[in-house]
Amino acid sequence: MLIVQKFGGTSVGDLERIQNVANRVSESKKKGDKIVVVVSAMSGETNKLVSYADNYSKNPNRAEMDMLLSSGERVTASLLSIALNEMGFSTISMSGERAGIVTDTAHNKARIEEINPKNIEDALAEDKIVVIAGFQGISIDGYVTTLGRGGSDLSAVAVAGALKADLCEIYTDVSGIYTTDPRIEPKAKKLDKISYEEMLELASLGAKVLQNRSVEMAKKLNVNLVTRTSFSNEEGTLITKEKYIMEKPLVSGIALDKNQARISLMGVNDKPGIASDIFNKLAQNDVNIDMIIQNKAHDGTTNIDFTVPKNDLNDAKSIVDDFLQNGDIKADSYNEKICKVSIVGVGMKSHSGVAAKAFTTMANQNINISMISTSEIKVSMVIDEEFAELAVRSLHDAYELEK
Amino acid sequence: MLIVQKFGGTSVGDLERIQNVANRVSESKKKGDKIVVVVSAMSGETNKLVSYADNYSKNPNRAEMDMLLSSGERVTASLLSIALNEMGFSTISMSGERAGIVTDTAHNKARIEEINPKNIEDALAEDKIVVIAGFQGISIDGYVTTLGRGGSDLSAVAVAGALKADLCEIYTDVSGIYTTDPRIEPKAKKLDKISYEEMLELASLGAKVLQNRSVEMAKKLNVNLVTRTSFSNEEGTLITKEKYIMEKPLVSGIALDKNQARISLMGVNDKPGIASDIFNKLAQNDVNIDMIIQNKAHDGTTNIDFTVPKNDLNDAKSIVDDFLQNGDIKADSYNEKICKVSIVGVGMKSHSGVAAKAFTTMANQNINISMISTSEIKVSMVIDEEFAELAVRSLHDAYELEK
Repeated sequence: MLIVQKFGGTSVGDLERIQNVANRVSESKKKGDKIVVVVSAMSGETNKLVSYADNYSKNPNRAEMDMLLSSGERVTASLLSIALNEMGFSTISMSGERAGIVTDTAHNKARIEEINPKNIEDALAEDKIVVIAGFQGISIDGYVTTLGRGGSDLSAVAVAGALKADLCEIYTDVSGIYTTDPRIEPKAKKLDKISYEEMLELASLGAKVLQNRSVEMAKKLNVNLVTRTSFSNEEGTLITKEKYIMEKPLVSGIALDKNQARISLMGVNDKPGIASDIFNKLAQNDVNIDMIIQNKAHDGTTNIDFTVPKNDLNDAKSIVDDFLQNGDIKADSYNEKICKVSIVGVGMKSHSGVAAKAFTTMANQNINISMISTSEIKVSMVIDEEFAELAVRSLHDAYELEK
Repeated sequence: MLIVQKFGGTSVGDLERIQNVANRVSESKKKGDKIVVVVSAMSGETNKLVSYADNYSKNPNRAEMDMLLSSGERVTASLLSIALNEMGFSTISMSGERAGIVTDTAHNKARIEEINPKNIEDALAEDKIVVIAGFQGISIDGYVTTLGRGGSDLSAVAVAGALKADLCEIYTDVSGIYTTDPRIEPKAKKLDKISYEEMLELASLGAKVLQNRSVEMAKKLNVNLVTRTSFSNEEGTLITKEKYIMEKPLVSGIALDKNQARISLMGVNDKPGIASDIFNKLAQNDVNIDMIIQNKAHDGTTNIDFTVPKNDLNDAKSIVDDFLQNGDIKADSYNEKICKVSIVGVGMKSHSGVAAKAFTTMANQNINISMISTSEIKVSMVIDEEFAELAVRSLHDAYELEK
């Protein structure tokens, strides 16, 4: 087997943990597998470098930040390589550039354009363990780039795809994907398998083990992704194609997102294009809209409700203010004390009644649902924040996810 | 003018000092010069990384050490670039690789094979300040290398040579080259100019401002080298071709080397080849021999005296022991309480009496000279260590170097 193993910041958080990672890599290698390791910077290291730069500029040049930050992963990669070397393995560490990770020129959040895996393949052919500095690449015009949040996961998935690896293991401090947040519902169960599509819904809804861009890339490149913990030998969760999941559960998990705020616009002028004006302005200002409800009021005007991430609320308010002053909107109100609870499962596609059960469960608990949105594999409900945990536990029970 | 400025570890020792360096570079740039800056790692940073590696291996893989250590200079380079950027300058930082510094494959002590300055030249043509990570290059087979001790100086000189820069300024915590160590002779005077040849003699004799390999490269590439301090605006010392030094002083400086030990071999067998056997064995074991004296004794055997660096004394002793046991040597003795005082000056070439004045000066102070060696521009004397400072001060007086 050819396995790509990725270890994040906490897994390589200090010298002892890097040795633990070396031990784990060594066990895999001894089984006869070919191993490529992708590492992040030691936790805290990147923040330290950012604070250094902050000392000189509040808005440092992005290309220079990439040059600066990319050093952190290089340090981890060479240290892990040295540790494995000492244990008797032939190893080689590579920068993103040397590993052939070519990106566009969008410094700080570059997109991978292609992987030229020749150097990796040559080293694997010599039976070496290859240790790659994650999070970084080289732009098509020759400068170091970094890939933004979750960048090391992305490096690992992209390399696994290019090498047609059998498995890409993402090691974190969490042992896998759970039916819901175990801090809310202690009966939450770890999933053995989950489809890319379900994972995408769960991730965007708050299960923050993997960034969506990594899951999307894994899906695109058909990479079998496993998330597991580096702190024990516990098996993780395999994220793969839906067709490889034999027994499809009706519902795979319940996600909770407390980071939403609700904006209500009353008496929106019933001129054509006002709603689109508002949402275009919001989009131009990078305000992400999640759910939208529109109702005709009896006076001929329209009421529009929508949700935005709490971070974007102030930006959204100032845009709404302009429309208020123009008289295009009569009144507005804001509610930060909401949350979104979502039920995700590929089984929904072929079974009816999943959404109905969710609404019944909320009703039984006297929880008012203020907004609803659905997709093929998801039902999302906006409710009062104070009922968040109660709703998650009730739904977890209702769909018998503890089994 | 095109100026290469190199700032060492203490000059970039913390964030504030990096800002000071930025201010200094800014002053040069404002004069209208084109500026290339070469930086070392922040002092302490390299030692920290070495201690990290030491945690895993007492003998870490050299290529991996280069990958590890080269990150330190990249951090300084990007931070300085960010600081200069904030001050309104267009800047770009470059790794050794990006700067086109190509080396052989001798990791940890690579030799520069060539400089491909295209990227630097392109950036200079766009009126950018170029900030280069010193101490590192890329091997002809594509791996990061480091240049060993004094490596950043070497980067600066090599880049200056390739760019045909007008000046290469080496900033350290010392303000220039002095007629002798000011801690020994407070009347020591800073030299305005000195020839490459004199500098080579002074450096190897203990004036540790510049490594000889950098001076040798400057000489080879005709680079005008200036050593000066980054902590004040004081002018430094220009190291250049002898022909550019109009007024050639008889003696430029007095060097003191306390790091020598004397080995005396008595009754060396008068067979052909014994002496060469001994010195070959020493050379094979990397013991550096400095001065040698050989005397015929009245019994037909030979006495040989030579000096080695104190660090090499133990190695030398064990080699000498073998010859003692073979009976090729009758007796040996060792003296670590010696020192070497040297008078250096290009003016000696054309003036007689310089050496004689040195011997007279020693005699006047009742200092016994136990070994003497001379070259075209140097007279070296081995004396008792306890007279070291007295000898230096007396010679400094005798040649009127305070003037």
